Amino acid sequence: MKTIWNNKLNIKNVGEVVTLYGWVSKKRNLGGLIFIDLRDRSGIVQLVIRPENKYYELAETLKNEYVITVSGTVVERESKNEKMATGEIEVEVTELTLLNEALEPPFQITDNTNALEDTRLKYRYLDIRRGEIKEKLETRHKIMLAIRNFLNGEDFLEIETPILCKSTPEGARDYLVPSRVNKGTFYALPQSPQIFKQLLMVGGIEKYFQIAKCFRDEDLRADRQPEFTQVDIEMSFVTEDDVMGLTEKLIAHVFKEVKGVEISLPLQRMKYDDAIKNYGSDKPDLRFDMAIKDVTEAFKSTEIAFIKDALEKNGIINGIVVKDAADKYSRKEIDKCTDFVKTYKATGLIYLKKEAELTGSIAKLLTKEEKENIVDILHLEENDLVFLVVGDYNMVKTSLGALRCKLAKDLGLIKEDDYKLLWVTDFPTFEYSEEEGRFVACHHPFTAPKDEDIEKLLTNKSHCYSKAYDIVINGYEAGGGSIRIHDAKVQEKMFEALELTSDDIEQKFGFFVRALKYGTPPHGGLALGLDRLTMLLTNTENIRDVIAFPKTASASDLMSECPNKVSDDQLKELHIKIEK
Amino acid sequence: MKTIWNNKLNIKNVGEVVTLYGWVSKKRNLGGLIFIDLRDRSGIVQLVIRPENKYYELAETLKNEYVITVSGTVVERESKNEKMATGEIEVEVTELTLLNEALEPPFQITDNTNALEDTRLKYRYLDIRRGEIKEKLETRHKIMLAIRNFLNGEDFLEIETPILCKSTPEGARDYLVPSRVNKGTFYALPQSPQIFKQLLMVGGIEKYFQIAKCFRDEDLRADRQPEFTQVDIEMSFVTEDDVMGLTEKLIAHVFKEVKGVEISLPLQRMKYDDAIKNYGSDKPDLRFDMAIKDVTEAFKSTEIAFIKDALEKNGIINGIVVKDAADKYSRKEIDKCTDFVKTYKATGLIYLKKEAELTGSIAKLLTKEEKENIVDILHLEENDLVFLVVGDYNMVKTSLGALRCKLAKDLGLIKEDDYKLLWVTDFPTFEYSEEEGRFVACHHPFTAPKDEDIEKLLTNKSHCYSKAYDIVINGYEAGGGSIRIHDAKVQEKMFEALELTSDDIEQKFGFFVRALKYGTPPHGGLALGLDRLTMLLTNTENIRDVIAFPKTASASDLMSECPNKVSDDQLKELHIKIEK
Repeated sequence: MKTIWNNKLNIKNVGEVVTLYGWVSKKRNLGGLIFIDLRDRSGIVQLVIRPENKYYELAETLKNEYVITVSGTVVERESKNEKMATGEIEVEVTELTLLNEALEPPFQITDNTNALEDTRLKYRYLDIRRGEIKEKLETRHKIMLAIRNFLNGEDFLEIETPILCKSTPEGARDYLVPSRVNKGTFYALPQSPQIFKQLLMVGGIEKYFQIAKCFRDEDLRADRQPEFTQVDIEMSFVTEDDVMGLTEKLIAHVFKEVKGVEISLPLQRMKYDDAIKNYGSDKPDLRFDMAIKDVTEAFKSTEIAFIKDALEKNGIINGIVVKDAADKYSRKEIDKCTDFVKTYKATGLIYLKKEAELTGSIAKLLTKEEKENIVDILHLEENDLVFLVVGDYNMVKTSLGALRCKLAKDLGLIKEDDYKLLWVTDFPTFEYSEEEGRFVACHHPFTAPKDEDIEKLLTNKSHCYSKAYDIVINGYEAGGGSIRIHDAKVQEKMFEALELTSDDIEQKFGFFVRALKYGTPPHGGLALGLDRLTMLLTNTENIRDVIAFPKTASASDLMSECPNKVSDDQLKELHIKIEK
Repeated sequence: MKTIWNNKLNIKNVGEVVTLYGWVSKKRNLGGLIFIDLRDRSGIVQLVIRPENKYYELAETLKNEYVITVSGTVVERESKNEKMATGEIEVEVTELTLLNEALEPPFQITDNTNALEDTRLKYRYLDIRRGEIKEKLETRHKIMLAIRNFLNGEDFLEIETPILCKSTPEGARDYLVPSRVNKGTFYALPQSPQIFKQLLMVGGIEKYFQIAKCFRDEDLRADRQPEFTQVDIEMSFVTEDDVMGLTEKLIAHVFKEVKGVEISLPLQRMKYDDAIKNYGSDKPDLRFDMAIKDVTEAFKSTEIAFIKDALEKNGIINGIVVKDAADKYSRKEIDKCTDFVKTYKATGLIYLKKEAELTGSIAKLLTKEEKENIVDILHLEENDLVFLVVGDYNMVKTSLGALRCKLAKDLGLIKEDDYKLLWVTDFPTFEYSEEEGRFVACHHPFTAPKDEDIEKLLTNKSHCYSKAYDIVINGYEAGGGSIRIHDAKVQEKMFEALELTSDDIEQKFGFFVRALKYGTPPHGGLALGLDRLTMLLTNTENIRDVIAFPKTASASDLMSECPNKVSDDQLKELHIKIEK
């Protein structure tokens, strides 16, 4: 059995006889000497075969990706390579065995590749040989193990919940599995173990976790997969503080174990309303500033028609300040920003530059006092650039929030390996659905309202907040959860608020609502997106990079060519037909 | 947040003020004092509430399974209960809060219950509160964590493989998932990650594992579930010895960590042919002896017609000896044994008793010499009981092998917490399928034949053996695996032996066979059944006991009532119809 990883060899091993196994990564002939870069999972070590070696002829026949084993002596290199972990040594080969040949790969197995992603996915087994992908899978393994050991240390039990579940008519679309035994019925793949984890609390498990596969049959966005993995946590006899406290300790442990990064605790907390107000997002990226400022006050007597008009309709005018950037933004670049905010339904983008004077799109229309007020409110200094959006609250916040992130990227304000974590709390309980003409639950109907808002459930839905919390890392929602309702009376009130009839309740949640009546402890929890967490810890924005065998945006596996057609016999056994 | 587990309280805590959370397990009123058994995940602690306590009235209203929290002082009990971990103390309550009420449970929450299993499954969330079930889930958690940490320490990476896979027309029946995006096509849930783990070896991962969910749509036997969990392992650059060596270290680690049981290594190994010969099974239970002995030699000149007849047709006569049991088996009990072996296709069961004389069914027909030979071959002593079966090799071995296990159970020869582990190796490569009229693969067609048998693949299939191995614990197959074929030429020969055309190969294994040509290292692995392993370590024969939310033998979940009907809209989106 192989006992040595390539990358463990160094100057201290000089003189030792070693046996190595791996793949030919590169072969070159220099002045009669054959040099081979031997690759294994850990890295690369250089082999040398001299012309007088009895394996020289065999070595000459080796091609890239051939699998070999060699024995030889570790020697110090004449010309060292400081970039390589094993760059100070090489192995003088005394024995060489060819273990397997290889066809020429469709792309080169190197960290940087210009191969199309579709080609890499088709030959994923070769793509995984590349350090770039392999290291991400290694990191994912480390993250999972660190999570498990941490939670075990906190007395949590990992409990597997079913994959063959009941289809529920709420939320996203289910993947269905026809039952052969019970004709005409179906299982559904779970969108999350939510119901099961709450049942485990009813069952007295008190502290549960699971690294669980979840499924959503949605039209995929670039950062979504039909199956994804979540770290699922639930605890009994807890408050919001307890769940957030435990989770941030867990996250800090993972950052420390996997990246050696210290996260200082407790994490900052921000109420949902403040996040929207100041950052235009419920997942603010705090690696840079550029908070959104309200300048409505400066325009209270404005004569600029479109602004006046908007403010009269209860609108606002807000802005962000890009420090010391006025000279970096030409008219053309500002136009790009205008186009960008329009995708967020902004009608336009006002810009101002603090030069000797305040200049920019509406500068000539501003009174002296208005200008002074703007400079004052925004603390403007020489060469600052200001973007303003006017209109209704949500649109103004959202478009400036998005612009803020775009500008930070464009201006390179984000340092690699900078991590800014925070909790966003106090989410609204309801949101008004124009489509359904009623208030619907922002999360699920088992999310507990704030104690002081229970009275508002039926009377003031738009000012009712929940014991819900999201953990945000670098502008991404890394996870979220809530305290659940354990009091049957509050639950009834919630159903009433959602205008559910007893038939609705029975059909949608029947057995679960009954279960909650058999002695349910106060409980709450959260779920972390493992794919997202791994992406954050491996600095990639491509979710497929952190999954061994991912699917494309059309939910296909290019390697095995699935989904695929199946035989008529298979369908017959399942009592289903394909619609023509 | 709750900080104290009930079962941690003992005499050392006397005088401390503690806050506890849990469920009312039992309440009794003795001479005006209210005693409550408070249950949490860890166990039970006794609470006392005196008549003068201001919470006395509230305490009187408490019912079983109500959820409460109390504060109070730990005091030494007057009458101690040695059977309880906390039996030396009780908690004198000073504060009591009712956290939630509970309906009366449909069965009592105690270790021993006479509730029907169907009732327990319907109210699984209550069943889990019972120590019996909860402890099994705890053990399962410990087993999984022990496995993960051990394999991590051996440089294995846990890598998740997909649940939405390609349907393959080999092996057991797949669960299918209709694709919405790609009309008329299907995913299949994996029966095992076999292909993916081999692809990870092609991908240079070298050491992979996963605790993986697998699915088989089979008609369920009592010990099967539609979804099950396996510990999936694959390694590169290894031999059979390497995989077996690693696995037995892993298993020993789990036994030690979870049960404190030392397993002495290396494990015994037994060739498949010897297991069949001596124990009539490829998973012999070695916790008791009663090996099968061949007594054909003693009957070589027999005049007993049915025996003579069978031996002339190449049959054998074999027996097992039940030591010191002749007086324990009446005619009636022996008849039961006869009925038993008949279910294994034995035509009958001969018995002999070593009393002063050799007595029994055929005793009068035996010559003196034959009797002497039988006593000699079987080393019979006074009061030994012998069972003989005559007929063709496989039937004789199988029926005596089964009888052997039945007798051991009946006679109570099996000690609890006795563990006998062994490897069964050198499985046949092929078995003859009467149905298909050809030899088929015993395992899968990627299983490597023994080096010395490669030549026999086309010429002597019935004497060809594989580099395959099963780990057997107490008569159960706990896992199995093999070295895989990595040489394209051997693979071609194997396909030829299985009479597969290139079309067959392309359709069944197309992309995988191509993948194997891009530099596949020698590799092999195995899979352990986690459900089975947990059953062995928790002394249960009911697989549903070790699964949090199991399904019945008709693959239903009685709790959520799944599988269930879904809406026409859902089916329409998936382009399928239910057959009338």
